[in-house]
Amino acid sequence: MTAMITLNNGLKMPLVGLGCWKIPNDVCASQVYEAIKLGYRLFDGAADYGNEKEVGQGINKALSEGIVKRSDLFIISKLWNTFHHPDHVKLALQRTLSDLGLDYLDLYYIHFPLAFKYVPFEEKYPPCFYTGAEDAKIGKISLQNVPYLDTYRAMEKLVDEGLTKSIGVSNLQGSILQDVLMGCRIRPAALQIEHHPYLTQEHLVQFCKNENIAVVSYSSFGPQSFLELGSKRAEDTPALFDHPVIKKIAAAHGKDVTTSEVLLRWATQRDIAIIPKSSRKERLLLNLNVNEKLTLTEAELLEISALNKNIRFNDTWDWNNMHFGSFA
Amino acid sequence: MTAMITLNNGLKMPLVGLGCWKIPNDVCASQVYEAIKLGYRLFDGAADYGNEKEVGQGINKALSEGIVKRSDLFIISKLWNTFHHPDHVKLALQRTLSDLGLDYLDLYYIHFPLAFKYVPFEEKYPPCFYTGAEDAKIGKISLQNVPYLDTYRAMEKLVDEGLTKSIGVSNLQGSILQDVLMGCRIRPAALQIEHHPYLTQEHLVQFCKNENIAVVSYSSFGPQSFLELGSKRAEDTPALFDHPVIKKIAAAHGKDVTTSEVLLRWATQRDIAIIPKSSRKERLLLNLNVNEKLTLTEAELLEISALNKNIRFNDTWDWNNMHFGSFA
Repeated sequence: MTAMITLNNGLKMPLVGLGCWKIPNDVCASQVYEAIKLGYRLFDGAADYGNEKEVGQGINKALSEGIVKRSDLFIISKLWNTFHHPDHVKLALQRTLSDLGLDYLDLYYIHFPLAFKYVPFEEKYPPCFYTGAEDAKIGKISLQNVPYLDTYRAMEKLVDEGLTKSIGVSNLQGSILQDVLMGCRIRPAALQIEHHPYLTQEHLVQFCKNENIAVVSYSSFGPQSFLELGSKRAEDTPALFDHPVIKKIAAAHGKDVTTSEVLLRWATQRDIAIIPKSSRKERLLLNLNVNEKLTLTEAELLEISALNKNIRFNDTWDWNNMHFGSFA
Repeated sequence: MTAMITLNNGLKMPLVGLGCWKIPNDVCASQVYEAIKLGYRLFDGAADYGNEKEVGQGINKALSEGIVKRSDLFIISKLWNTFHHPDHVKLALQRTLSDLGLDYLDLYYIHFPLAFKYVPFEEKYPPCFYTGAEDAKIGKISLQNVPYLDTYRAMEKLVDEGLTKSIGVSNLQGSILQDVLMGCRIRPAALQIEHHPYLTQEHLVQFCKNENIAVVSYSSFGPQSFLELGSKRAEDTPALFDHPVIKKIAAAHGKDVTTSEVLLRWATQRDIAIIPKSSRKERLLLNLNVNEKLTLTEAELLEISALNKNIRFNDTWDWNNMHFGSFA
């Protein structure tokens, strides 16, 4: 049984789940189904990942076979940047639910704090960085003047309507998270952020702890997740799997402890939820059971945290290179 | 004649001004008056600095003696955290104008992106970190649920009413600045931030450049400004005045070039306005005339920028140590 954390709305969320980012469409349904059979209960998806139909197929196969009940699962998706206008927020979730073949989500995040121009489903879905044919020709993204709280308040209505049990925020760094707390009616249950020993964001994590907002870590292995995207920054950063400090700590806990387990446990032991991905059954089991297998010492946790270099691989500032339109 | 930059509202702002933070009350009026006589035209003040009456006395002495006209000056103040509620924004500016003895400001900033509980003038002014007698007993700050855009929109009305010619934002780092642009009617003319070679904030500076928002640097000398506040972080950080790179570059430009001039020129040459403070006449003149005296090479500018360590001395996260009340 995976450890659970209790969200500020009383809901329990598994501390370990399966991240669905970059799971290829052709294997996605079976990987999700197999993960459920292995014991996974949390699936972290997003409209933008382009595989919600397949995630839903895997889930519904397990449901129809009686392997789990819907209430055993914790299903997550994320509102994409093109749907930030209050008129589009519910439509976007309805599309996600329809693709997943589900009636409700357990958690729905705002994926990024930036509103792109609206793109209708029939034009391109998921639209990713596409904001219209003219923009695409010149590699530009157009924005839409929707303040974050307007989007957030439309998210709150989805809770009222029972379409999602919780709402969350993602890829926020500082003041805008404080500002959500200033203006919200329903507090965000979780903040999902890039988080690994090269980007520990300790102030932000401590702030969330003080404010009873669960922190969920993505890209727990640091540069690793970004190598296949061709990230120069990731290529230039030493792999955490081979980092001497991580290797030393893994070795100190016995021959069968891997550096990836050390990286994951460093997060969960500090109450940060993780959503690693793997296509290999043995790795999926290692990830799922990391909390039971391994306990790091306080000194080891601190030694890993001290590796922080404030290196962010998924940085929205980089989107400025994509010829942002003017805001006003 | 000091170099000027043109703001996005067409107003011209001097690239060099006098920062009024920490100018002691007993010498403030005469320092401001003397600075005007030396050629200073921009005065960067704030309600929180507790010396607006004295700043106003210095200004009005110069005005009454005909040394300058009001239209020659560029007078700045900042809305303090306790006055973020739309009901209090105009009151706060009226108090500032009354203290200064002026009819309008040239630029009014929101000092920090965080709303403290309201404190009436008669209870404590400026209130600084005081949010009531009960809080003061236990060293706590209470907040008020006012989203930033609500405050910003009240600031926009001050422009409509002619009480300030421009409005600006300060101490913003990332998404919340983008969010202001999403929700504003009058774009911020300027962003004032901590900025020095240990905290270059290059993404943010580039973003402002793209969006035609002037960047104003405070604490251009880095740790120096925070030593007198007893900042441990400042004590632990090597002084920029003695930094070998800064010394080498100063020396390369001749015996009479100081490291402080190099630090200031590194900012202004990249179109970042500066507001250094000094109580010494010769230093005030050096600061004011730095643009005419010194031109750094492109390689020198880059070498200084490469000193960046993301060290922030004025960090609102630190306020969490002050027993923040819950937001909701």
